Amino acid sequence: MSEFAKLWAEIAPVGRADSGGYLRFALTEPELTLRDWFRAQASFRDMTVTEDGNGNLFAWRGEPWAPGTVLTGSHFDSVPHGGGYDGPLGIVSAFLAVDRLPSDRKVGIAAFVEEEGGRFGVPCLGSRLLTGAIAPEKAATLKDRDGVTFSAALNSVPSGFIGQIANVAAYVELHIEQGRALTTPVGVGSAIWPHGRWRMDFTGVGDHAGTTRMTDRHDPMLTFAHTVLAANRAAIEAGAHATMGRVQVEPNATNAIPSLVRGWLDARAVDTATLGRLVDAVVREATERAGRDGTALAVTAESVTGEVAFDTALAGRLSALLGDAPILPTQAGHDAGVLSAHVPTAMLFVRNPTGVSHAPAEHATEADCEAGVEALATVLEELG
Amino acid sequence: MSEFAKLWAEIAPVGRADSGGYLRFALTEPELTLRDWFRAQASFRDMTVTEDGNGNLFAWRGEPWAPGTVLTGSHFDSVPHGGGYDGPLGIVSAFLAVDRLPSDRKVGIAAFVEEEGGRFGVPCLGSRLLTGAIAPEKAATLKDRDGVTFSAALNSVPSGFIGQIANVAAYVELHIEQGRALTTPVGVGSAIWPHGRWRMDFTGVGDHAGTTRMTDRHDPMLTFAHTVLAANRAAIEAGAHATMGRVQVEPNATNAIPSLVRGWLDARAVDTATLGRLVDAVVREATERAGRDGTALAVTAESVTGEVAFDTALAGRLSALLGDAPILPTQAGHDAGVLSAHVPTAMLFVRNPTGVSHAPAEHATEADCEAGVEALATVLEELG
Repeated sequence: MSEFAKLWAEIAPVGRADSGGYLRFALTEPELTLRDWFRAQASFRDMTVTEDGNGNLFAWRGEPWAPGTVLTGSHFDSVPHGGGYDGPLGIVSAFLAVDRLPSDRKVGIAAFVEEEGGRFGVPCLGSRLLTGAIAPEKAATLKDRDGVTFSAALNSVPSGFIGQIANVAAYVELHIEQGRALTTPVGVGSAIWPHGRWRMDFTGVGDHAGTTRMTDRHDPMLTFAHTVLAANRAAIEAGAHATMGRVQVEPNATNAIPSLVRGWLDARAVDTATLGRLVDAVVREATERAGRDGTALAVTAESVTGEVAFDTALAGRLSALLGDAPILPTQAGHDAGVLSAHVPTAMLFVRNPTGVSHAPAEHATEADCEAGVEALATVLEELG
Repeated sequence: MSEFAKLWAEIAPVGRADSGGYLRFALTEPELTLRDWFRAQASFRDMTVTEDGNGNLFAWRGEPWAPGTVLTGSHFDSVPHGGGYDGPLGIVSAFLAVDRLPSDRKVGIAAFVEEEGGRFGVPCLGSRLLTGAIAPEKAATLKDRDGVTFSAALNSVPSGFIGQIANVAAYVELHIEQGRALTTPVGVGSAIWPHGRWRMDFTGVGDHAGTTRMTDRHDPMLTFAHTVLAANRAAIEAGAHATMGRVQVEPNATNAIPSLVRGWLDARAVDTATLGRLVDAVVREATERAGRDGTALAVTAESVTGEVAFDTALAGRLSALLGDAPILPTQAGHDAGVLSAHVPTAMLFVRNPTGVSHAPAEHATEADCEAGVEALATVLEELG
């Protein structure tokens, strides 16, 4: 059994659901178990563990936040029934890569909190707090589906911007690729598409499904359904991506016309102008349909991230170092995108044979994961 | 304060949610509280309380199930955040009507379990069991949203068909009207439209909302959305009613393409042929769209009820008795519809000023409710 397979097997059962996917929401029991595992791995390597008051966890070789430190890492949290690689692969690989470095290298491993936004709705919440991209007071009041606030889950108001981020020489995040673009074991990231999530509250009039005449209805499910199809059409026309994969209905009963349908639009495009046009088109179609249905629409931008271009010179240098590894963009958000505004940042991608992600079928081969560890060690040694 | 207002005030707070609507699901704490209240009301009137092993509760003046008994009543359970009148009005009115009857009248008051199907998915479950319209073994295995079976909630396998139903001379159910057709305080029911609920499971391929190319998707939300709009169009064309007001999504995350969208179709029409054509048209459109989306569709008829015509002679007699009260059909299912296959059955409707039902705004005026009690007492005295 390889070193990778051994370490991977330690965390593979944590938070696994009957679906084969994972329920590892930020600061819930499975993620807290993984944080304990993180501390144990750090301790085993004589690394110092610190927390930053924002829910982010760090293991350091050398002084915490020492100037010139190279930071690597990723996140433990998953989307509901997501795959096991998205996030944890970067942390497991980080520990194994550190094992291959000379012991005098100043290196840190990060486990960022709430990268998926699967619990509190704002993705990359930990890295946004750390870099000051979101106000701690705002983050404190974000609620999960049970009404628990982020500060309650954290047991304190988050501390916000950590000035020592300026001491970091570079941040390198290894991540499973989330499409099928990569045909070699390892690639280097070039950019992240601008993307965001918009909550759309469609309000109608709750009533009896059996007795209310079709002409008397104000059914927000119709407006929602029209918007789902409009978002799909608009994304195809724009060469962009749009998805409405989450919905909440009140009262959500078979024999009741809903009073409220709340849908979330996930939209991404190659540049911010295209993304803006896409979202405008969806909102325009939804509003027009709401007029016909006698329903109302309120749109809230829950998070919007502009285009991220990673350090071009750094990406080229890493590609050369890794035997001309391909350089490719991603449509997925990452903590690396948030950090890239503050420190030179790079991403390594590990090949994903089916391209499936955020679902139980997400997978990378053991050989490719080992190649990822090797590549990460090479990069950390070069940069450290 | 009127007798009606006093008795109504006793139950008004039970199971009321912040929405102003009610969460009174069958055999949950609020409904069990209402059953205790039912027992206390019966005891106060020296009525004998029995249960039938199916979850239905009865209060009797005279011997339980004595030949020639006139039965009245309704149900306590609500749809999620439904109004307070749908069901309980018939039981409160029954106790007040019995107070006005000569003490030698053989009368029973029923509180049927799970009329809405809001917990276990099959409406009129209690009356279906009592009349043998559903097998007790099948009812026993029905599950609520938490996986609790009906038999677990009941603490036993239901007993099924109760032969003594043949002893009942007539069943009269008073109910709030669920549309705006009634313009006098009280009306008499003529028929119930045939209706049913069909579960539609749309299966696709779960994947990352950001990184999956639009052309690579198998997104079941698209098929669901198309079906919602198709059902609406088909119902309007058929002069029928169709609603898709309940949906479950897996994994229901903003940044994940769903693997499964489960929607429920509630459809009703003036006759069974029209209903059949309507449902066929919706399934045909859904299947065609599933082919285009690369998704799969499975349809399960969870409950289908044919046309119910109440006893025409009885309805005419009651209308005359109540000063030529209007005779009108309803599109809503009722336990009275199930019982009508076994005993002469009639319904009394109390005016609903806005026509809203299955929502917090459902309402009848105190004066109309009192007129309903008066009418029910008149009818029970005539039939008893």
